[in-house]
Amino acid sequence: MAELPERAHALFDAPNHATVATIEPDGRPQSSVVWVRTDGDDVLFSTIKGRRKHANLTRDPRVSVLVFDPADPYTYAEVRGTAVITDDPAAELIEELALKYTGESFGTRPGEERVIVRVSPDRVVVYD
Amino acid sequence: MAELPERAHALFDAPNHATVATIEPDGRPQSSVVWVRTDGDDVLFSTIKGRRKHANLTRDPRVSVLVFDPADPYTYAEVRGTAVITDDPAAELIEELALKYTGESFGTRPGEERVIVRVSPDRVVVYD
Repeated sequence: MAELPERAHALFDAPNHATVATIEPDGRPQSSVVWVRTDGDDVLFSTIKGRRKHANLTRDPRVSVLVFDPADPYTYAEVRGTAVITDDPAAELIEELALKYTGESFGTRPGEERVIVRVSPDRVVVYD
Repeated sequence: MAELPERAHALFDAPNHATVATIEPDGRPQSSVVWVRTDGDDVLFSTIKGRRKHANLTRDPRVSVLVFDPADPYTYAEVRGTAVITDDPAAELIEELALKYTGESFGTRPGEERVIVRVSPDRVVVYD
């Protein structure tokens, strides 16, 4: 378990989009863009049951989350960690993240089974 | 071998920073930020011998390259492909990419052994 340094905290706490890399069943990497926030040293994002990253992380919880500020892309933080997935039946995290990133409510999307992915850092790399 | 759709071409050809995910020796994902350009359906980036992504791709060439426009992060392209690495003794690609991204010369950096990583897409996902 690693600490999230202040510089990484700042990058994740600002409304910067992050990329998440997971492992496919055949061992290849797979990437996608997510909204994120921190909780202590952990990084949280929301996804939907059935999405590829949900299936991948359910099988292999090892994950890399990278964030940079587009205004200064030469400083970035990468969290290599382990994901724990919990149900979010009220879709609370995606609502909170929608407010952070868009200033607007996410609204309700019937049929989506939201989950919270909590990434606890095993290692944090801040590239400066 | 997959084609690079026009929307993905446009995202890679603009000076958008991309993220590259590779596989660590123990099977975990690892991510970093790169400058990129296309060459036909391939995506090219530059790195240095000895960097982690160089070591990873030399061992396992399977790679994911993701790009989005920070002004519209809800459209993004992911290339899942296979990397071929060639030496770039004159550091031509990084010079070209520096001009694309910063408008300035990269200059010479003695001691850096530059390589070109050419990613041929096996699959392209455009998320819109």
